[in-house]
Amino acid sequence: MPSRTELANAIRALAMDAVEAAKSGHPGMPMGMADIAQVLWSDFLRHNPQNPKWANRDRFVLSNGHGSMLIYALLHLTGYALPLDELKRFRQLHSKTAGHPEASETPGVETTTGPLGQGLANAVGMALAEKVLAARFNRDGFPVVDHTTYVFLGDGCLMEGISHEAASLAGTLRLGKLVAVWDDNGISIDGEVHGWFTDNTPARFEAYGWNVIRGVDGHAPDAIRAALEATRGSDKPTLICARTIIGFGAPTKQGKEACHGAPLGKDEIAAARAALGWPHAPFEIPQDIYAAWNAHATGAEREAEWNALFARYRTAHPDLAAEFERRLSGALPDEFAVAADAWIAKLQAEGPVVASRKASQMALDAYGPLLPELIGGSADLAGSNLTLWKGSKDVNSGDPAANYVHYGVREFGMSAIANGLALHGGFIPYDATFLVFSDYARNAVRMSALIPTRAIHVYTHDSIGLGEDGPTHQPVEHLASLRYIPNNAVWRPCDAVESAIAWKAAIERRDGPSCLVFSRQNLAHQPRSAEQVADVARGGYVLSDPPSARFDLILIATGSEVEIAMQAMRILADQGVAARVVSMPCTSVFDAQPLEYREGVLPGWCRKRIAVEAGITDFWRKYVGLDGAVVGLDTFGASAPADALYRHFGITAERVVDTARALA
Amino acid sequence: MPSRTELANAIRALAMDAVEAAKSGHPGMPMGMADIAQVLWSDFLRHNPQNPKWANRDRFVLSNGHGSMLIYALLHLTGYALPLDELKRFRQLHSKTAGHPEASETPGVETTTGPLGQGLANAVGMALAEKVLAARFNRDGFPVVDHTTYVFLGDGCLMEGISHEAASLAGTLRLGKLVAVWDDNGISIDGEVHGWFTDNTPARFEAYGWNVIRGVDGHAPDAIRAALEATRGSDKPTLICARTIIGFGAPTKQGKEACHGAPLGKDEIAAARAALGWPHAPFEIPQDIYAAWNAHATGAEREAEWNALFARYRTAHPDLAAEFERRLSGALPDEFAVAADAWIAKLQAEGPVVASRKASQMALDAYGPLLPELIGGSADLAGSNLTLWKGSKDVNSGDPAANYVHYGVREFGMSAIANGLALHGGFIPYDATFLVFSDYARNAVRMSALIPTRAIHVYTHDSIGLGEDGPTHQPVEHLASLRYIPNNAVWRPCDAVESAIAWKAAIERRDGPSCLVFSRQNLAHQPRSAEQVADVARGGYVLSDPPSARFDLILIATGSEVEIAMQAMRILADQGVAARVVSMPCTSVFDAQPLEYREGVLPGWCRKRIAVEAGITDFWRKYVGLDGAVVGLDTFGASAPADALYRHFGITAERVVDTARALA
Repeated sequence: MPSRTELANAIRALAMDAVEAAKSGHPGMPMGMADIAQVLWSDFLRHNPQNPKWANRDRFVLSNGHGSMLIYALLHLTGYALPLDELKRFRQLHSKTAGHPEASETPGVETTTGPLGQGLANAVGMALAEKVLAARFNRDGFPVVDHTTYVFLGDGCLMEGISHEAASLAGTLRLGKLVAVWDDNGISIDGEVHGWFTDNTPARFEAYGWNVIRGVDGHAPDAIRAALEATRGSDKPTLICARTIIGFGAPTKQGKEACHGAPLGKDEIAAARAALGWPHAPFEIPQDIYAAWNAHATGAEREAEWNALFARYRTAHPDLAAEFERRLSGALPDEFAVAADAWIAKLQAEGPVVASRKASQMALDAYGPLLPELIGGSADLAGSNLTLWKGSKDVNSGDPAANYVHYGVREFGMSAIANGLALHGGFIPYDATFLVFSDYARNAVRMSALIPTRAIHVYTHDSIGLGEDGPTHQPVEHLASLRYIPNNAVWRPCDAVESAIAWKAAIERRDGPSCLVFSRQNLAHQPRSAEQVADVARGGYVLSDPPSARFDLILIATGSEVEIAMQAMRILADQGVAARVVSMPCTSVFDAQPLEYREGVLPGWCRKRIAVEAGITDFWRKYVGLDGAVVGLDTFGASAPADALYRHFGITAERVVDTARALA
Repeated sequence: MPSRTELANAIRALAMDAVEAAKSGHPGMPMGMADIAQVLWSDFLRHNPQNPKWANRDRFVLSNGHGSMLIYALLHLTGYALPLDELKRFRQLHSKTAGHPEASETPGVETTTGPLGQGLANAVGMALAEKVLAARFNRDGFPVVDHTTYVFLGDGCLMEGISHEAASLAGTLRLGKLVAVWDDNGISIDGEVHGWFTDNTPARFEAYGWNVIRGVDGHAPDAIRAALEATRGSDKPTLICARTIIGFGAPTKQGKEACHGAPLGKDEIAAARAALGWPHAPFEIPQDIYAAWNAHATGAEREAEWNALFARYRTAHPDLAAEFERRLSGALPDEFAVAADAWIAKLQAEGPVVASRKASQMALDAYGPLLPELIGGSADLAGSNLTLWKGSKDVNSGDPAANYVHYGVREFGMSAIANGLALHGGFIPYDATFLVFSDYARNAVRMSALIPTRAIHVYTHDSIGLGEDGPTHQPVEHLASLRYIPNNAVWRPCDAVESAIAWKAAIERRDGPSCLVFSRQNLAHQPRSAEQVADVARGGYVLSDPPSARFDLILIATGSEVEIAMQAMRILADQGVAARVVSMPCTSVFDAQPLEYREGVLPGWCRKRIAVEAGITDFWRKYVGLDGAVVGLDTFGASAPADALYRHFGITAERVVDTARALA
């Protein structure tokens, strides 16, 4: 039986060899955390390499994702579908071993990490998901949801602000099944951290209400084991402070930044092999090492135990079991689509004139009762974002139907936690803040799109229309900037009907996030035929054509500016200029429609096109080209009542009319 | 002589009345912090209302900027150029009393706040500026730089991640002249904070190495005074924890979220007047209250003392005094422009083939010795961003020429601290991270543009060209997104010459920030005439025309894609297609050129235009319209060597040639 150290050395060797083969990468962290990883994965982590999606597996997150060879080595050694050839192709095109771990690329990788600190927040989301799901589904004698979330993190994660937001909230939420291991190696890319990172981290985490285990020797398996044992049964999240030597085993580079982010070089690797007592050739792992690492048997056994438990649960609680399976599958209730369409038709018929943020809340009230997987929240703006609906229950309440998180003023942490909730499974998270503060969360939104997750980011107060709060609170560039994130669907509805359709689209979307952008101010209701209502889901559609069906120009608008376009259309009609009005609530969905549909909405022959949106004009050149015009806003806003601002910045029907006449 | 409470009640009354008149705003915070503000501004703050730009004034920052009526009341009462009429027009168009305080609008407002947490980071930057400037300019007996930075902050600021980044670094830097006052009122917008904010904040700040003064009654002037006294001479930053009642004085709404962000209403205001013993009409301040508040005499006296000191300093150290005045004025040394142009000409002649990040470092080495006001740093990526130059000296070193901050992995805090350094005066800050992580700092970059500050944000690793680190680290949408921030100049140079010109432009720009975007990989040198070299500063220019000067199409490119465009131009020439190549390092500067110049570069008759940039294609429609084409990247990148990625994503000369032939 190989020793623990030999098992850990297998990680070290693979990390050195793969980074050397790729001529790039980060060997230091995997070599430093190898002993900790060995103890955790061999003795504690409940997982089954043959089924990386087993519902009740423990979750493992590598927040310091640059040390990706650690998790690739672990996945390979324990028997996931990650053969040695993939490790040899570390960081190459089409390999399963990207430079940073990617959940969509590699079986067993729970989340995509690399942007520091976000893995910790994802882990908080996963641990919260476990807690809320357990409260919903567990019954006496049936702990069908009962697993731990482990997260490794480094000094970099701890310096990032998001670590504060995520750890603070985890403390408040008392996430006892969250275990973080801090790789306390005293080194970051710039060198020894004492010049820029002097926090008393244990004291800091105690201030958050965490259980802190200090001074663990990260190279002493017994100490690591004792620390991990001590986390069991905690009613608080735990931080294990593990002192390690970065690049452990590399004779001249260990303990120095030199081994952080570059290959060690042939000579150093040879010397490290000698120092570690690892005589094997590059990428060669002895059979007894493989055998000791392999987790197929224990994994199958653990999953079988749980499957047996779940079979008994299904007998005792058949409805709950079916609902659990539905929730974890990500499928929506069968009745959702029909009910949503009925709600949408009712709105179209009744035509309420409300702010779209209010329409958003109405949609939540309509859809929420059908969707227990919805878990919402806002960054301390519940009353402004209107994210609370009639069925909202605080996750702190212990209520089995809990579905609402008071995130506090923590936009970035909130959005990364939402990604974790979605990744865990069983939930469709929505979060919310003012559109301008999507900036604070921006890289988490990007990660929603990249991972991808079905996270729904609700952004209200979507333009200068918010009025008096002024330019610090008025988004101008945000719509365009969010639309430019690949795989991100940005909806800006023009009335209650489009708002309800946007919510439906976001909920039904399986392969990425949606940003739902709503107004503070009331919006006019727009009349539509049933066909037009159906076409809203295509992202852009003809809202109004002249009676003759012939038109001279096209007005394209979104959100609150659709009514301005409609008003301009009517004035132009009086002046003998026939205009089509296109409502374009989601440009990416429209762009994905067949050419024929797009050409039907924006026919190529008509180059007289005017886009109207209270934001950066250049974005709209993709639709209006060089021959068209855009009525928008290319400067920061100002502090004044909304009406005054629209007049001041010239986002008015009169301006659209003047622009149209200049074009015509 | 009015009592302290009466003086504080003047603030409360003005806050109630102005919010009521505006029908929007935040009365709770000014009413809660009025007593603290009274003690600080009457007894401690060294300032002169008659000269808001006095170099050695204490700085006051309202990080909880929604309580803007607090600072407007203080500025008005102490005698700044902010008449009562402006307070009556709170939050109206063209008033000097915007919804949130704006440095560019209101005399005496040191920085624009509202986006929570950033004011604290700005204050850290100001305190750091004071410390570094003092080390540089003070001499025995001449403490010409000696002032304190005070910052008010609320629970919201403390929940934000940026508070962690800024406070942690302030602790490491031992900014003893930074005093933060926490408005510990237990209320945020969602209600009583115990459901979402349970940090032990004093313990947290002690963990950062701060001096923490606990349990101060924020309505007891003596206790406030004692706490502020106790901050003097500290070698650590201080957090004063002041327990307050939000909306103090409003009989039914105080202590509740109801008074946080909405007018109190006529009845409540009348009741508050009665409860506070403030019998005066709305916006009426008795003369004795004005007299007691007025700081003209003490302000003039303090500034006169300092002026006398500075006059003696000028005699003893004339060169230092002149340099101090130059630094504080923001003017560059006379020799800078000439020296920079010589450096640029030398580069054009020598034609080094280097990565533009290396060219950036070369520019720092060339310009740095002339510019002691440059203060740099990187978020733990000094060796990758290449932000250290030969003259860099750590601000921790105590060296009088200190000019470099190891910011640690704190992108958002770094950029907001840079804004504070710039706002203080005496510095041109540059900071740095990978372009993709501009996301983490995004709202601080926006604030650089809105405030505005001459902050220079350096972003390296600017495309898939960074290679193996993969999509988490590869910017795709970032160039376009940063360009869309109003008043933000984004430069993406194509070689060492353009890099040096971009640095010069950023340094010379007085009215806003610049983002300098550099490659990881080497870039070809481009030949240019002297006229072309001069035109680089116009943001876009003709880099190459066919020998005949007649062309069929225009290729527009930036950065690393310029050499691809040049290569495509040559292949096309061989095929008999004549192409102009336009290099467009800064679109906003190009857009600001006279029409005639722009038309000269991109003549309207030529609609066959192809833009080439390894990023989101839609941005370029503003130049190529519907008839042109864009070679770029509308998906996330991948992990592989850079060359493989360029081929995989088809950002190659061959693809440009094919695209051109399809257009032609």
